[in-house]
Amino acid sequence: MKRKTPADKTSAEHDERGRFAYEALDRTIHERARLGIMASLAANADGLLFPELRKLCDLTDGNLNRHLLVLQEAGLVEVLKQGEGRASQSTCKLTRRGRAEFAAYVEALERVLQDAAAARKALDAGGSTTRAASNKPGWSAG
Amino acid sequence: MKRKTPADKTSAEHDERGRFAYEALDRTIHERARLGIMASLAANADGLLFPELRKLCDLTDGNLNRHLLVLQEAGLVEVLKQGEGRASQSTCKLTRRGRAEFAAYVEALERVLQDAAAARKALDAGGSTTRAASNKPGWSAG
Repeated sequence: MKRKTPADKTSAEHDERGRFAYEALDRTIHERARLGIMASLAANADGLLFPELRKLCDLTDGNLNRHLLVLQEAGLVEVLKQGEGRASQSTCKLTRRGRAEFAAYVEALERVLQDAAAARKALDAGGSTTRAASNKPGWSAG
Repeated sequence: MKRKTPADKTSAEHDERGRFAYEALDRTIHERARLGIMASLAANADGLLFPELRKLCDLTDGNLNRHLLVLQEAGLVEVLKQGEGRASQSTCKLTRRGRAEFAAYVEALERVLQDAAAARKALDAGGSTTRAASNKPGWSAG
């Protein structure tokens, strides 16, 4: 516990502020399509050609381009173009920073799963994981 | 492998379509603030009063209301109001459906973590998890 709490509030109410805010879930990566792109590239350290990445993520050209741009601007992904005109190929790859931030994101995801597992366990045991007994109203709705 | 593949494509290209699309990550739950709300309520099976939920998720009144509305409209959360005027209290709780869909979402998250763990392992081993050897161009950018 970080500080004294007034008598009219439980310590849990103070200590638990932002407990489920999940701020470490970086929004740039968290968006579902971008999460798929990041995971694809993490699984293919040598990079993926644009058509390969599009297939793995089941995205349209337009959507893949749009999300890649966001990831490039955030410095997480780099795109290398080779060749010219119709013969050109784009290879996408995580940057060093992208790899590090994806690792941090995955760590934050693990917290979510731990919370969910604890909740499940408490539910099976008939309890509640984060809240002390309180004067909350009874619950009647279905 | 589900089907024969033309000679000009690797079987991996077919089999891996949508491999990283993560369609089971329901977007209603996946949004970060709503994920926090769902996890808070999963951890508190008896429900949470509005101010408690707001603290746990570190959201403003307006944002919490907005996200709760989305979750209510999707049938995942129910809000029970008791009392009148300034003395009224709102209790938020997962519906049966909300609990089931959160469990399915968590299962999908586990897949993401498994993919990330496999990618990490492959990287440590100097390999690649989803892609067979191919004629991809060499990668030179930083």
